[in-house]
Amino acid sequence: MIKNDAFVWPVRIYYGDTDAGGVVYYANYLKYMERARTEWLRQLGFEQNSLRQQHGVLFVVQRVSLDYHKPGRFNDLLEVSVRILRRGRASLELAQDVSRTQGEILCSGMVKIVCVDAASFRPRALPADVLKEVKLAD
Amino acid sequence: MIKNDAFVWPVRIYYGDTDAGGVVYYANYLKYMERARTEWLRQLGFEQNSLRQQHGVLFVVQRVSLDYHKPGRFNDLLEVSVRILRRGRASLELAQDVSRTQGEILCSGMVKIVCVDAASFRPRALPADVLKEVKLAD
Amino acid sequence: MIKNDAFVWPVRIYYGDTDAGGVVYYANYLKYMERARTEWLRQLGFEQNSLRQQHGVLFVVQRVSLDYHKPGRFNDLLEVSVRILRRGRASLELAQDVSRTQGEILCSGMVKIVCVDAASFRPRALPADVLKEVKLAD
Amino acid sequence: MIKNDAFVWPVRIYYGDTDAGGVVYYANYLKYMERARTEWLRQLGFEQNSLRQQHGVLFVVQRVSLDYHKPGRFNDLLEVSVRILRRGRASLELAQDVSRTQGEILCSGMVKIVCVDAASFRPRALPADVLKEVKLAD
Repeated sequence: MIKNDAFVWPVRIYYGDTDAGGVVYYANYLKYMERARTEWLRQLGFEQNSLRQQHGVLFVVQRVSLDYHKPGRFNDLLEVSVRILRRGRASLELAQDVSRTQGEILCSGMVKIVCVDAASFRPRALPADVLKEVKLAD
Repeated sequence: MIKNDAFVWPVRIYYGDTDAGGVVYYANYLKYMERARTEWLRQLGFEQNSLRQQHGVLFVVQRVSLDYHKPGRFNDLLEVSVRILRRGRASLELAQDVSRTQGEILCSGMVKIVCVDAASFRPRALPADVLKEVKLAD
Repeated sequence: MIKNDAFVWPVRIYYGDTDAGGVVYYANYLKYMERARTEWLRQLGFEQNSLRQQHGVLFVVQRVSLDYHKPGRFNDLLEVSVRILRRGRASLELAQDVSRTQGEILCSGMVKIVCVDAASFRPRALPADVLKEVKLAD
Repeated sequence: MIKNDAFVWPVRIYYGDTDAGGVVYYANYLKYMERARTEWLRQLGFEQNSLRQQHGVLFVVQRVSLDYHKPGRFNDLLEVSVRILRRGRASLELAQDVSRTQGEILCSGMVKIVCVDAASFRPRALPADVLKEVKLAD
């Protein structure tokens, strides 16, 4: 789904995502963000297993920063966004927010992903067709 | 560590293991049991990455049954046991209990693992040196 | 969604669900089954946080058995079913299968859940309105 | 264990920590770091469940940044460090590295934790006895 120029993916909070503090365990926002990136690539026409088989590449995360604003709670319905901030030859910098559907941001993140060789984990240029589809937000 | 004829591995409950019910999330007992099986194989002299490289085999779980007796809570120190119940050509049936160190059983399990080809996932006979070390409890 | 008399919930396999064997980590089928139970209760009209607030009860899993038939792989789209096998005063026994959308079963499970007091974790009768909605498969 | 002025906690990589890329799933470094923080507080004499019961406080993570340098692989034995960078009235900023025991850094992080009221999640001053024990690295 596209919303205010960003791709948005819905995520529900289940018990397994929470911790004894009664809220989403802090590492799980990274799982939510990974799901949204996968679905964002899918709607652009790219399946990561195909990219691996055809081009021998994987996307790996090189840097992450997260700000936790409010706790997510069991049963909340969330939205995770993906917006491109910067585009390099072999890397992308993404802004990703996790919000309640009413718009309240729970966690905002910056994620730098790098395209690497699936065997050596060394950087490789983004496949040309990916590069073509990946547009910067204005 | 060997205790009453069973291999025993200590596990601490951290926040990330618990859920909003305030107790260990039910799937995580399977993680604890996997850790104990890995350490049990290690003390018998087998590293699973070496088994994969040298013999091209993986251990996969084919069947599991778990009984949850009492909830584990954040910060509890647990012990996970491994005892062999049955030994086949390509499989092992293990009894695994997760207990508080004082002896109270939280979760008792039966786990059947099968030795498979790492590529095809088809059953393969247990490597001879593994078979030799794997002894049934009396 | 209802399919052959069973409630069915779709689940996508993401990277975070897999392990270095290249397949879904065995504990994660329990996460998928929990999500399906939550959504099954929701479509019957029950939110678990409301059940906790209004009735002071939680559902906890007392027993689980799982048979792993085939490995699930990254990007597979799965369906998780919920079917009631037995209904007690304070408990339900459910059959839950995780299948590829084409019908191939990856993991079949039996899950016994018990309604407990949220503070003491002692069994409590299922709330009357839940009992009314929970029907046995023929 | 104290090593070069930092607290260090050992962590083993198990199957459940890895993903289909064959390496530690990126979110799991946050789990490792949480374990190390818990053990660091424990060796200073503080149990988080006691802090919650006696002072009504929790530690929550407010900000995290992670740099992923090299992939961790199944069976690697790691060390996770905790070093205090800054100390506020209600917060601590920590440097946390995850390294192979031979010294190679896999992931380096900065984690800001805040002491909050366990019910309202609003910031609360660090308990006096905690403040006393928490020393800045020179």
